[in-house]
Amino acid sequence: MSGKYVYLFEEGGAGMKNLLGGKGANLCEMTNIGLPVPPGFIITTEACKDFTRLGQKFPEGLEGQIREKVMILEKRLGESFGDKTKPLLVSVRSGAPVSMPGMMDTVLNLGLNDATVGALISSTGNERFAMDCYRRFISMFGDVVMGVEHNKFERILDRQKNKAHVHNDNELSGEDWREAIEEYKKLINRETGKDFPQNPIEQLFMSIFAVFNSWNNDRAVVYRRINRISDELGTAINIQAMVFGNMSDDSGTGVAFTRNPSTGEKKLYGEYLINAQGEDVVAGIRTPKPIAHLERDMPLIYKQFEEICSLLDKHYRDMQDIEFTVERGKLWILQTRNGKRTAQAAIKIAVDMVCEGLISREEAVLKIEPGQLEHLLHRRIDPEAKLDIVAKGLPASPGAASGMVVFDADLAEKLGQEGKKLILVRTETTPDDIHGILHAQGILTSRGGMTSHAAVVARGMGKPCVSGCEALHIDYEHSEFKVGDLVVKQGDIISIDGSLGNVILGNVPMIDPGLSPEFQELLKLADQIRTLGVRANADTPEDAAKSRGFGAAGIGLTRTEHMFMAQDRLPVVQEMILAGGLREREAALNKLMPMQQEDFYGILKAMDGFPVTIRLLDPPLHEFLPDAEELMVDITRLRLTGGNKDEIKEKEDILRKVRALSEHNPMLGLRGCRLGITYPEIYAMQARAIFLATARLVKEGLQPIPEVEIPLVIDVNELAYLRELVDSVAAEVKKDTGVDFHYTVGTMIEIPRAALLADEVAAEADFFSFGTNDLTQTTLGFSRDDAEGKFLRTYLEQKILTDNPFMVLDRKGVGKLMQMTVELGRKTKPDLLIGICGEHGGEPSSIEFCQMAGLDYVSCSPFRVPIARLAAAQAWVKVKGTADIGYGTL
Amino acid sequence: MSGKYVYLFEEGGAGMKNLLGGKGANLCEMTNIGLPVPPGFIITTEACKDFTRLGQKFPEGLEGQIREKVMILEKRLGESFGDKTKPLLVSVRSGAPVSMPGMMDTVLNLGLNDATVGALISSTGNERFAMDCYRRFISMFGDVVMGVEHNKFERILDRQKNKAHVHNDNELSGEDWREAIEEYKKLINRETGKDFPQNPIEQLFMSIFAVFNSWNNDRAVVYRRINRISDELGTAINIQAMVFGNMSDDSGTGVAFTRNPSTGEKKLYGEYLINAQGEDVVAGIRTPKPIAHLERDMPLIYKQFEEICSLLDKHYRDMQDIEFTVERGKLWILQTRNGKRTAQAAIKIAVDMVCEGLISREEAVLKIEPGQLEHLLHRRIDPEAKLDIVAKGLPASPGAASGMVVFDADLAEKLGQEGKKLILVRTETTPDDIHGILHAQGILTSRGGMTSHAAVVARGMGKPCVSGCEALHIDYEHSEFKVGDLVVKQGDIISIDGSLGNVILGNVPMIDPGLSPEFQELLKLADQIRTLGVRANADTPEDAAKSRGFGAAGIGLTRTEHMFMAQDRLPVVQEMILAGGLREREAALNKLMPMQQEDFYGILKAMDGFPVTIRLLDPPLHEFLPDAEELMVDITRLRLTGGNKDEIKEKEDILRKVRALSEHNPMLGLRGCRLGITYPEIYAMQARAIFLATARLVKEGLQPIPEVEIPLVIDVNELAYLRELVDSVAAEVKKDTGVDFHYTVGTMIEIPRAALLADEVAAEADFFSFGTNDLTQTTLGFSRDDAEGKFLRTYLEQKILTDNPFMVLDRKGVGKLMQMTVELGRKTKPDLLIGICGEHGGEPSSIEFCQMAGLDYVSCSPFRVPIARLAAAQAWVKVKGTADIGYGTL
Repeated sequence: MSGKYVYLFEEGGAGMKNLLGGKGANLCEMTNIGLPVPPGFIITTEACKDFTRLGQKFPEGLEGQIREKVMILEKRLGESFGDKTKPLLVSVRSGAPVSMPGMMDTVLNLGLNDATVGALISSTGNERFAMDCYRRFISMFGDVVMGVEHNKFERILDRQKNKAHVHNDNELSGEDWREAIEEYKKLINRETGKDFPQNPIEQLFMSIFAVFNSWNNDRAVVYRRINRISDELGTAINIQAMVFGNMSDDSGTGVAFTRNPSTGEKKLYGEYLINAQGEDVVAGIRTPKPIAHLERDMPLIYKQFEEICSLLDKHYRDMQDIEFTVERGKLWILQTRNGKRTAQAAIKIAVDMVCEGLISREEAVLKIEPGQLEHLLHRRIDPEAKLDIVAKGLPASPGAASGMVVFDADLAEKLGQEGKKLILVRTETTPDDIHGILHAQGILTSRGGMTSHAAVVARGMGKPCVSGCEALHIDYEHSEFKVGDLVVKQGDIISIDGSLGNVILGNVPMIDPGLSPEFQELLKLADQIRTLGVRANADTPEDAAKSRGFGAAGIGLTRTEHMFMAQDRLPVVQEMILAGGLREREAALNKLMPMQQEDFYGILKAMDGFPVTIRLLDPPLHEFLPDAEELMVDITRLRLTGGNKDEIKEKEDILRKVRALSEHNPMLGLRGCRLGITYPEIYAMQARAIFLATARLVKEGLQPIPEVEIPLVIDVNELAYLRELVDSVAAEVKKDTGVDFHYTVGTMIEIPRAALLADEVAAEADFFSFGTNDLTQTTLGFSRDDAEGKFLRTYLEQKILTDNPFMVLDRKGVGKLMQMTVELGRKTKPDLLIGICGEHGGEPSSIEFCQMAGLDYVSCSPFRVPIARLAAAQAWVKVKGTADIGYGTL
Repeated sequence: MSGKYVYLFEEGGAGMKNLLGGKGANLCEMTNIGLPVPPGFIITTEACKDFTRLGQKFPEGLEGQIREKVMILEKRLGESFGDKTKPLLVSVRSGAPVSMPGMMDTVLNLGLNDATVGALISSTGNERFAMDCYRRFISMFGDVVMGVEHNKFERILDRQKNKAHVHNDNELSGEDWREAIEEYKKLINRETGKDFPQNPIEQLFMSIFAVFNSWNNDRAVVYRRINRISDELGTAINIQAMVFGNMSDDSGTGVAFTRNPSTGEKKLYGEYLINAQGEDVVAGIRTPKPIAHLERDMPLIYKQFEEICSLLDKHYRDMQDIEFTVERGKLWILQTRNGKRTAQAAIKIAVDMVCEGLISREEAVLKIEPGQLEHLLHRRIDPEAKLDIVAKGLPASPGAASGMVVFDADLAEKLGQEGKKLILVRTETTPDDIHGILHAQGILTSRGGMTSHAAVVARGMGKPCVSGCEALHIDYEHSEFKVGDLVVKQGDIISIDGSLGNVILGNVPMIDPGLSPEFQELLKLADQIRTLGVRANADTPEDAAKSRGFGAAGIGLTRTEHMFMAQDRLPVVQEMILAGGLREREAALNKLMPMQQEDFYGILKAMDGFPVTIRLLDPPLHEFLPDAEELMVDITRLRLTGGNKDEIKEKEDILRKVRALSEHNPMLGLRGCRLGITYPEIYAMQARAIFLATARLVKEGLQPIPEVEIPLVIDVNELAYLRELVDSVAAEVKKDTGVDFHYTVGTMIEIPRAALLADEVAAEADFFSFGTNDLTQTTLGFSRDDAEGKFLRTYLEQKILTDNPFMVLDRKGVGKLMQMTVELGRKTKPDLLIGICGEHGGEPSSIEFCQMAGLDYVSCSPFRVPIARLAAAQAWVKVKGTADIGYGTL
């Protein structure tokens, strides 16, 4: 707890963000490359940490170091604290390693007191200006440092204006301000029992103390919790000589981006005000002018600023967001930082900078946050629109939609066929609602998580969905839902934002998706870099085609069960499930076979020449059956109202079967390959459908590459048993059709035991595909549907987990199992193909982990394919390092 | 596929069971120690395996080796195949490495033909005897080797008896037999198109062929599947000179055990028949005499036999089951093997043999199959009783009970209070049924697995339970259940066997449990050997006391939730769960606290000086609430019948809360420490109750050792958070009571992630306890309740898994995680206390694994403590080897 706590700007650099904060490090950097930065020094984050550790006490040596740097500053400027003619005035600003805008405290104009304000009057000849500065300082200091509520100062100001019969602050005279200042001082004394300190060095230490404390104020703590910023970082403090943009008409202040932050266009973008301070821009009393006008107002300043912008853009090799102030004809740069930008701008800037030779391809792909791309790939709500958000659910399927509220799937189908736009609103959806979902623009449910039926089906169809919106109280009987006191009736218009989980009243303006040429260019760069393959999860020929369009090199997961849920098939599927014996079941399966064959034909055709992983039936059978509770209620009603006996009996029969199939924990029940082993005829039918489709395509001269995938394996014996079944069906089909074709058989790795025994399992597998959704559920013992609506939020808030493990792959637990799997599996088969098809396959941090773990490919939903391509390139750069990166052009 | 396929008895020994089969190896051993064994040779299991591998063909060299050994046999006996005066007659018997009684084929009297039968007549002077031998051989050979149905031979025999006007076989004359034999031969020719072979060597090869094939006959395959015997073992074949116990009145045959197989008493036990063959004993035409009578009938033979028995008992150092035959005054030993015995006998024999200096303590403990002890520890059905078993469910809680069928918990309570014996029969039980269970002798449910509510509660209370008896169709409305056509009404008497899962009509005779002095002695031996600690799982002071009685050195698991389910507490618990907010919940918790405190006081007192691991609340809260479906039906009924509006509303309110708490996969939902993190006030209450009880006991001069256990941990952060909570409560209690006490805080390891991150978790844990029930569920992705009733049976039948992983610890998967945990945990804390409290803690093979993995203790239900003590001793011997074992006496 000692050492160097204070750095002059000359002593630091851009690389010292953790020690000096982001703002401070950049001030140092600019100072060192010779830009006009008002001089100053920085108190380090280490000092802040030690301060906190010591229980809000300055660590040893800090005070002395500060005093020393103040003296250097005084010497350099020829000013000094409290001097009656040349007083030193400084700003004291927080500056953490990670930007936390507005969360911590700032004090400006420090150094003013009853004596030094006189110097300011005489040097500017503007009493009103000087007094205004002084009173601003007192109220800011009183508020931030001494804890007097800001509005109490405002009330004094209001009284003063009433007294002077004026409306605006700037109409007050110097004398008025003088009176107000006296009242301010009295207020402070009254509230705190202490006088406003006249000694500037005392002002300074008190301010530093306050800024350090503000690291742990409530709003900063909450902000960090929400944004997952470590409490351990601490803040630095920047102490810098004041410059005034409001001193005269050859003064001013402004902000500019070196490139357009909306479009990425390479042109200065920003605004400024003459004779004003930063605060004035914020207050909105005067309208700032576009930066281009500065060329006319202050041509020399403009030219200098333009050059500095160009220099900083090149120096940081990124678009900069720059604050400047002109004091009496002299330009000062107060801040530079990487500018925030839209996804569209980010892409254009990155691609442009490669063309300009500023950055390498590898650096370019690193400049885009892949999650940003998502917005560009879906219809989205105009970010400028004012929204009446009435509730928030889970962002279950991205994109946005508007339409009338409909509570019933049949009605939805009817209205949809009439061309109406609608949002289907249900507590939860079931396979019975599929036809309604098909005709809806979007889905809204009050229950269920990110993997609920509604969410999965909507994502599959590429429709927006908000699920688990628990604030919604749906009353089917009255065809309405309530949110608090608000009642929304069937037919009312709402909008949903499936990317954010918002439910919005009424129509909202939308922006259609579009892939710009720069976007395509960026993905081309990414493809040149990445080694990780990218496939899509797709269940239909349409999705397969869409995936190809997005650049997917194959399908990593085709879920055959979604085909089972189609409206025309569900009755046959139910027939199959409710079958009394093998013969009945096979009869139903025979009806399903041609339908499945068509599905596979279409998908394999759309993916001609690319591999298609087809997962055999996975979910528990009761997912295809009606709900036991509803049946029970029906039966009770029928009995009490003397209903038809046959009908009662029929329902009772179904109920019995539903009950027999119902499970305590369906996630861990009769599903996956357990179905295939219990009812081999189901998997045999699916295998036959796959191979018949394959044979037909081969005959037609195409190149189908089916990969048959066995889900939920925990033991090599399961795989061996089912592989034999699949192989024997393949042999039959080859014999029957006279066509030879190639296929492989592999397995999902989605249960810990399969991972632990991957060496054994690999002996029977041509490929592994990580099903990280289920692997996360079993490794963490988290039912996703239950966790996300319930305790997971608490876990994230309490920082027990840093991320939602269903969104960002849990590297420590699930990842450890994955690494074991890869290692063990390749020990048995060095060339084992290994991919991932859980939702993590489309999430950048998880993709990075997949690269590290040595996977061959990731697979994700079609819309995320571009994101995955970019993330895969980033992963390569991050994991493999940038040793062999040369700067290049496109 | 070649080498030595045939061994003379002189060439083998007892250690060659795998190669020569159990029977053959012992024949060799007896031959070599000079006992009178009819000479012969053995064809190895390797020959059988090669025979199968080659597609039912003799491997090269086998035929020659057999011919060679036949010649040796002929030379030694002075007899030869087909010789008209001194023909060689042999038996051909299967003999696998593992006993498969009656499953494979045997041929006797081989070598007889139309010519050699004459030699038998003249050598015995008994035509009837010789012809009987010949016809038996033809029919046996015809059946076993040539595939002619046995009853067709029987029919010829019947005709012959009709013709001769006699009833019994032994009334037929030599001439009658001669005629029958001719008919037999014709039958064979008619059925097979082939003649009965007259060439003895041809007979021999055909028989060998048949016996090899019988390894794969249907009944042998099924037997192996049921008994989990590998198909790979193959069978050996014993070819041995015939001896005849039915040749004369100085001939005979018998079977004897060297000690009493029921009681273990050291006294010859068995029976014999004069002038008879083994078959006659089985046929039951004549009643055998007790072996002691042989001393009078054949004093010299008896003396010789007694000496041989004593020799074999000593030689094998185990009780032997010996077959002998006397042929014309000469004793022959045909078989010896370790005798089957009751648990009681097994214990006495083992303890006696230590006293006799025959075996070491270590060998003695290895002689008892620990599972056998279970029977001795519970009331059980008299094994002699004839039972009318009407259905079979899961053996959910051991022991047996009889009583009247009662379907309703309230009625059960009423009848129980009147002193009636009853069996509570429910589809499933819920906490609402606890008062009924309390008054029932046993529980029978038609649904639910080994961890269903009924099973868990019954095991906890030590009551027998049969669960998941799906054949039962319960009709509450008519107070009856059906099994097929059988109707059982309320009040009818049934019995259940919770050790076997049987449901039996009517009362059955029972045997009360009792610990014999030998049992105590055996456990003392075990305790001297074992290093693994044994604790009990106990939730009440009574169970704690019982556990001490069984020798448990502490409690490894106290489930606090069972205390929550007690009838007087459930309403308060429900109040707590349905509470609108923190204050209401705390009010309910305050009511529960004194009750919990009393629980802990009682348990810690009963375990004075021994550690008690107390697990904080674990199960999902909705387990304590009524069923949603029943509520829904009630509401529908009330609505339709114009019920009270307030009542409807109240039920709707409860339903809403039940729904809000209901989960898709409760196993993976809001339970365990997730409850403690979501509602810290619950865990705080429990911790306070534990520590107040502890403080009180310390004041009373006792030594309570509470170990506070946090369940379902997946991350060290959970444990750190809750440990802080527990520590702060402890500090408060210490301050409030002025008493200092000691306690530890640890965690269950029951989710894969906790195992994978055990090094991190150990940093905050004083102990680990493996919850292998849940760890098995998550590692395998098996919901126990769903798997056991559904696919697990198929998995075991198809040999996809070798054992039910909930009964026998899955070493490959779960075990691998356990080993990682121990290794990682002890890397952080070398002296970390590690135990197991899942049900595997009482299962011998799992206990062996725990010893291997380096655990400190196992914990199991009180009744299994003796089993665990024995199994722990066995584990030590097996795992650590027997290097330092010296023979000793007690």
